[in-house]
Amino acid sequence: MILLTRRATFSASHYYWNPAWSEEQNVATFGRCANRQGHGHNYTLEVTVNGEVDPVSGFVVDLKWLKDVIEHEVLDVYDHRHLNHEVPEFASTIPTTENIAIAVWKRLEVPVKVAGGAKLSRVRVYETNDIFADYLGETDGASA
Amino acid sequence: MILLTRRATFSASHYYWNPAWSEEQNVATFGRCANRQGHGHNYTLEVTVNGEVDPVSGFVVDLKWLKDVIEHEVLDVYDHRHLNHEVPEFASTIPTTENIAIAVWKRLEVPVKVAGGAKLSRVRVYETNDIFADYLGETDGASA
Amino acid sequence: MILLTRRATFSASHYYWNPAWSEEQNVATFGRCANRQGHGHNYTLEVTVNGEVDPVSGFVVDLKWLKDVIEHEVLDVYDHRHLNHEVPEFASTIPTTENIAIAVWKRLEVPVKVAGGAKLSRVRVYETNDIFADYLGETDGASA
Amino acid sequence: MILLTRRATFSASHYYWNPAWSEEQNVATFGRCANRQGHGHNYTLEVTVNGEVDPVSGFVVDLKWLKDVIEHEVLDVYDHRHLNHEVPEFASTIPTTENIAIAVWKRLEVPVKVAGGAKLSRVRVYETNDIFADYLGETDGASA
Amino acid sequence: MILLTRRATFSASHYYWNPAWSEEQNVATFGRCANRQGHGHNYTLEVTVNGEVDPVSGFVVDLKWLKDVIEHEVLDVYDHRHLNHEVPEFASTIPTTENIAIAVWKRLEVPVKVAGGAKLSRVRVYETNDIFADYLGETDGASA
Amino acid sequence: MILLTRRATFSASHYYWNPAWSEEQNVATFGRCANRQGHGHNYTLEVTVNGEVDPVSGFVVDLKWLKDVIEHEVLDVYDHRHLNHEVPEFASTIPTTENIAIAVWKRLEVPVKVAGGAKLSRVRVYETNDIFADYLGETDGASA
Repeated sequence: MILLTRRATFSASHYYWNPAWSEEQNVATFGRCANRQGHGHNYTLEVTVNGEVDPVSGFVVDLKWLKDVIEHEVLDVYDHRHLNHEVPEFASTIPTTENIAIAVWKRLEVPVKVAGGAKLSRVRVYETNDIFADYLGETDGASA
Repeated sequence: MILLTRRATFSASHYYWNPAWSEEQNVATFGRCANRQGHGHNYTLEVTVNGEVDPVSGFVVDLKWLKDVIEHEVLDVYDHRHLNHEVPEFASTIPTTENIAIAVWKRLEVPVKVAGGAKLSRVRVYETNDIFADYLGETDGASA
Repeated sequence: MILLTRRATFSASHYYWNPAWSEEQNVATFGRCANRQGHGHNYTLEVTVNGEVDPVSGFVVDLKWLKDVIEHEVLDVYDHRHLNHEVPEFASTIPTTENIAIAVWKRLEVPVKVAGGAKLSRVRVYETNDIFADYLGETDGASA
Repeated sequence: MILLTRRATFSASHYYWNPAWSEEQNVATFGRCANRQGHGHNYTLEVTVNGEVDPVSGFVVDLKWLKDVIEHEVLDVYDHRHLNHEVPEFASTIPTTENIAIAVWKRLEVPVKVAGGAKLSRVRVYETNDIFADYLGETDGASA
Repeated sequence: MILLTRRATFSASHYYWNPAWSEEQNVATFGRCANRQGHGHNYTLEVTVNGEVDPVSGFVVDLKWLKDVIEHEVLDVYDHRHLNHEVPEFASTIPTTENIAIAVWKRLEVPVKVAGGAKLSRVRVYETNDIFADYLGETDGASA
Repeated sequence: MILLTRRATFSASHYYWNPAWSEEQNVATFGRCANRQGHGHNYTLEVTVNGEVDPVSGFVVDLKWLKDVIEHEVLDVYDHRHLNHEVPEFASTIPTTENIAIAVWKRLEVPVKVAGGAKLSRVRVYETNDIFADYLGETDGASA
């Protein structure tokens, strides 16, 4: 069982707001994150894949390829963007750290399998140094 | 399977000493850590919970609530304290990194379940940058 | 010569835009930072003061006091805010890392001198891990 | 389930080259890593063991012992070395991050079991801050 | 002007207490740091020297030698110790970050000059990631 | 006085060897670094410039431009290279951290002045987390 991880970063704005709620309820639930002017973070992303080590190249996947996939599928869409206003999946889903991790998984799962011949194993998103979410897919959670 | 982690820090003193042993045996086993004047660390704590993402809030748990729980249940008792002399669970248990991780788990498991509606998944304690322990509860160790 | 530094963090949104310029000129100069939806960062702030060590307390300044001053004068105004839209000094000044460092200096210089009895020596602002600005005041640049 | 991890670092040179391939094929696959003058990294190694906490010592394993084992079995052989030319297991295996993780596992598994009375759980190797591989042994991958 | 820096760490206990004051005054001034059971930190030390680059060796000073000097003069005395009770210079001086930086300077200035042929330029002590003190000696503060 | 810093990294091999010396003298002076197979590091570079903040752009220099200059002048020559064998300035100068800092200064001083309109203020090179050199140019050392 071998896992290979590549880290990347992006800077984006967001805010937390449930349009079905009153302003009072939003502020009560989300605190300062409900400020609709938005605030932002330097997000750090860790993308982990697993597979067999190719005996010829010594690679699970080509890390240069993995970097490019992350850039094309995620960073080009998220970096220097306002997540609520400019990223389709957050038009109606609140861009919490948990939901960002799930959204990144959805963007990467197929390319990693089809083009990379590997299995997406974990997506970790750090919102700050002190907060991060891990999404492991709709599996039985057996590997982390 | 989604995991959410919050990090916190505390500064505390400790030493390693088994009262059933002679001084020689303590020094032979624990080296410089057996100095009963104590020494200290900046501990870093990572508390990981898992659960479902609430479709309304986008949260597994409210991170502000999780921060408060960690402060009330752990930091208020451990921070700026001498673990051997001032923290009940270390009166008769040596405060190794392993035992601190288990003790933090015991302090957090019930509040995370009862008040947070989530499941404690992992407690990681860094004693230094180079040493850390993970406690996963009395499970089959299937998730980390 | 003794310098004492306290670090703090805040998360904010910003964009770069000169209203005297056309959109083309803004994009040519500021690239992705000219996106007026804004993007954001986890800023890290380092505030350095110098003075004499009080022989009674062993302090240059009381670090708890310094933390409170940074919170009241800077973090309460900047954290979880959109710098361009919500912070007065950036209504007509572009919130580059350089200008943020200067603005933080202006907010802290008098309180550090009057209430703290010390001299502000340096303000460092990290926009990301890889970019930071230092402002040393309108001195001859003799200390950094 | 308790896991204990010790981190260590070593500095080494390597390059990627498959002697069965032409120079063109090596450069196409490995890019700048195919430069046979070699280049190098500060590798960071995390060695994780699991076991029971000894109720007398509070230890899963003695961390001083674990540090010594890592030094003798890995660092003495890898640190300040050219992996391709001086480390036997890389004479015919390309020293990718994946293969280094597997090789470190093979060096440590028996000593950790026989002399340490614990079970090697994970070997993580960071090649840079942004790239790391985890090897979990030939298990069912249930714990990480 | 070339500066060379070596970092080292030590773990120690301390507390803040002025024996000329009442308990009330100590707690009012030092807060949780006045707890006489002590608490502790992982201190990080940065020792900076300046001098000429030796054209034959390419060294300002031999970093292995500098490491040994720091170990013998500082770490052997401070590491895994209670600073107030076991380190002579803190018997009557409160071990604040500022005073530790000055004390390390006094321990290193002569060996760096006499045995190393270089000039001690700066001692930085981190008490935590967020707090550090720099001592530059009794100079005019021209270099930092 | 405003300083702006950009960080970059490169991975390279090197060894320490003075051809005027015997092997014994090289090993006695340079220890494991004298291994002529070479070893390597992930170097981190910090390039600091100073100047006036342009009131129109808010920039001391354009950080995108500074990044490009560092890439063209330094990284394209040093990254994934063997410094002793492939970088001209180290053909007859030992690539110590000190000498790398000076060499990077020489590569950047003129472009920063001529094309950037700013003044190179400091080049810092980290060989590892624990070792770094700062070169401030042939100034009087007044700013660091």
